[in-house]
Amino acid sequence: MKPFKVAILGCGTVGGGVAKILLEECKRVAERAGRTIEIASIVDLFPSQSAQRHGIDPAYYCGGGKELTPREAARYIRDILSDESIDLVVETIGGTSPEIVALAHDALRHKKHLVTANKALLAEHGKAIFITAAEQKRALGYEAAVCAAIPIIKAINECFTGDEILSLSGIMNGTSNYILSQMEAEQRGYPDALKEAQERGYAEADPSLDVNGGDAGHKLTILLRIIFGLDIGSDDLQIQGIESITGDDFEFANEMDCSIKLICYAKREKESVFATVRPMMVKRGNLLSRINGATNAVQLRNKYAQQSTLIGQGAGSLETGSAIVSDIVFIARYGDKAIRNPALYAYQLKSFDELVFPYNVTFETANVPGITGIVTTAIGKYEINIDTVSHNRYHASNAVFSIVTMPCTHRQIANAVEEIKNRHPSSLLAEPKIIPILA
Amino acid sequence: MKPFKVAILGCGTVGGGVAKILLEECKRVAERAGRTIEIASIVDLFPSQSAQRHGIDPAYYCGGGKELTPREAARYIRDILSDESIDLVVETIGGTSPEIVALAHDALRHKKHLVTANKALLAEHGKAIFITAAEQKRALGYEAAVCAAIPIIKAINECFTGDEILSLSGIMNGTSNYILSQMEAEQRGYPDALKEAQERGYAEADPSLDVNGGDAGHKLTILLRIIFGLDIGSDDLQIQGIESITGDDFEFANEMDCSIKLICYAKREKESVFATVRPMMVKRGNLLSRINGATNAVQLRNKYAQQSTLIGQGAGSLETGSAIVSDIVFIARYGDKAIRNPALYAYQLKSFDELVFPYNVTFETANVPGITGIVTTAIGKYEINIDTVSHNRYHASNAVFSIVTMPCTHRQIANAVEEIKNRHPSSLLAEPKIIPILA
Repeated sequence: MKPFKVAILGCGTVGGGVAKILLEECKRVAERAGRTIEIASIVDLFPSQSAQRHGIDPAYYCGGGKELTPREAARYIRDILSDESIDLVVETIGGTSPEIVALAHDALRHKKHLVTANKALLAEHGKAIFITAAEQKRALGYEAAVCAAIPIIKAINECFTGDEILSLSGIMNGTSNYILSQMEAEQRGYPDALKEAQERGYAEADPSLDVNGGDAGHKLTILLRIIFGLDIGSDDLQIQGIESITGDDFEFANEMDCSIKLICYAKREKESVFATVRPMMVKRGNLLSRINGATNAVQLRNKYAQQSTLIGQGAGSLETGSAIVSDIVFIARYGDKAIRNPALYAYQLKSFDELVFPYNVTFETANVPGITGIVTTAIGKYEINIDTVSHNRYHASNAVFSIVTMPCTHRQIANAVEEIKNRHPSSLLAEPKIIPILA
Repeated sequence: MKPFKVAILGCGTVGGGVAKILLEECKRVAERAGRTIEIASIVDLFPSQSAQRHGIDPAYYCGGGKELTPREAARYIRDILSDESIDLVVETIGGTSPEIVALAHDALRHKKHLVTANKALLAEHGKAIFITAAEQKRALGYEAAVCAAIPIIKAINECFTGDEILSLSGIMNGTSNYILSQMEAEQRGYPDALKEAQERGYAEADPSLDVNGGDAGHKLTILLRIIFGLDIGSDDLQIQGIESITGDDFEFANEMDCSIKLICYAKREKESVFATVRPMMVKRGNLLSRINGATNAVQLRNKYAQQSTLIGQGAGSLETGSAIVSDIVFIARYGDKAIRNPALYAYQLKSFDELVFPYNVTFETANVPGITGIVTTAIGKYEINIDTVSHNRYHASNAVFSIVTMPCTHRQIANAVEEIKNRHPSSLLAEPKIIPILA
């Protein structure tokens, strides 16, 4: 069988990992793919940096190793797409600029299989790209786009095929998990923990997408498409980040035998899918509560196989590279059969606010007698049963206390809070914090 | 594309789960396989029991639902093998009788793909069956044979293909894990915990294969073949069961911040593979220490992707059935490409005794002064560094104490023990218990 030829577009952290593995493991990879896999060419603006960092022969780079202008790089990419001998393009440039979106479509239209780690691209433009891939009968590999080294895409598409996934909960952003783990273990505040994460290279200078849940939302959007066939963008999800989590929250969580994690959650009930990204208090009996640092984890609840948990590294040059190479091997081996379009069921995304969950609600109130009664009476009026009332924290002029509810909807709680605000306008000093509890 | 036709031989706990899922999920399964999957026929000696238990129409059973004699069943099976319209045979009869071994080969020689959950069959006769499958160009599916619902076989064969597995450690027997979990949580002795496991259906009346490590050994043997290409039988492995684990062991483990688990372990170093099944003290920082009850877990250490952990249900009718259906879908979809022979590397199985590990060694000695000195002097003579000496337990006439070593080989410890026995013949009241510590 003739060699399977691959071009790597963008050879930084991730693309460089791909090239390194393909070169180091060419024998092993060939045996698994059933054919030799060759790097036909690499396009990168700064080849000498890339070559040195990843130990790649500069001869692989278009231009022979000299720096490229963006215009030159674009010309080389056009040449690659026109080269009929090239079977597959790895897009590891990143971003969602119009050029990148166009590149994804162009590669497929030029009959190249496409493999990418670009979660934002697939979350925001997934529908159109999947359609182009289907029209062109080319495979789309994106194992690396969701939790990098955790083979969650192949687990869903190739492994749990004798089953039906009913719900999922996962820790899908390493940066925010690192920060939360530090806050818990070292009793640090959020700003402190973020700073340390930045200093140690776990968080970028602009950490917004990691800490505001945006990155996790991209990954969940991709999973919702392939598990439940939902055709949505990540803007359609209810997403909350970790920026407002405090030491008090961890104290209340600890009293409830919980940790706090940024959880990607989705659950199907009949024809509806409830989904969200937000901090949750996770019971310590749940393994997700034990996932610390930059590690990722995904828990699936299946109709037949019950609960399955996959844990691994969610980032890193070689970790992500390994996932991309597994896509290349898969496509090289299975060819047209590797083309798998996400199922389109008739499921509908519903507001997470309507899903029944136990909640931890923390109130910051004026330090006046009777306040617990005011709050708990309002809660009762909206037919929320209280499981526990946690100890008050008394500060100079305010009190903070938490209520754990029996399963109810976020909307019921919001209504109760509205009632308190209306009837006792000065009693609440801040918006109550409403955190779901994951058993 | 014409329907893919499946015959199920043996429709008890596992075969019944397969039939039930194929019937309930026929639409979903067809979508994933890219073609309809049909149950062509089922052979079982007691169809009415099977049909009732799993909710299957008796018309699917050979003989139309009436009880079969073994001779009649054998005739129906011959008819199925001769039926050219049948694509795949599910062997869920179990056992390793000559008839079952012959059936596996016969099915392949009649050009049927073969799917089985029979770990003993593959551990004891795997080489010959893999050869027959390769000769006949038919696929062999055995996802369900190792940890049932954990997709460990596909993880190795299809997911971590851009990587190299360097070592694995796993909890692969639910019965023994249930017993150990009970011993730890309820401070019960082994006989007590076993009895409870039997009463609750977690252990069979004859639990030997589960508690003596034999079943876990079968699974590890299969994994060693596909990960490292080792052509061995489970008799070649060093296997120890859990029968001799006591409450004292759990106490010492707890002092070391460990739990005790029956661990399947394998590690490659250069051209050697060290492998064993035996109880290990597992540090609580390792997630394996948190896997309780009948759940299974496998941890892989990869060259690039670092550590990956897969956790799920290792037994059960529908859990195992789900894994078998995933094999059927895979083979129906990928056809000849699904034929994947285990790689044959040049690696060699080496004695686990030569692998460097930290160990917990528990001595039961006469309650005489100076005994700690005698033991620790001998340990030092064999160049074993001691990490910790745990508190003595003083009983009426004996003392029990543990030493934790820095990494050393089992052989070094065995030599030190020999030395103690020779020089102070009456000092040891029992064979010291040597348990590796898994970080």
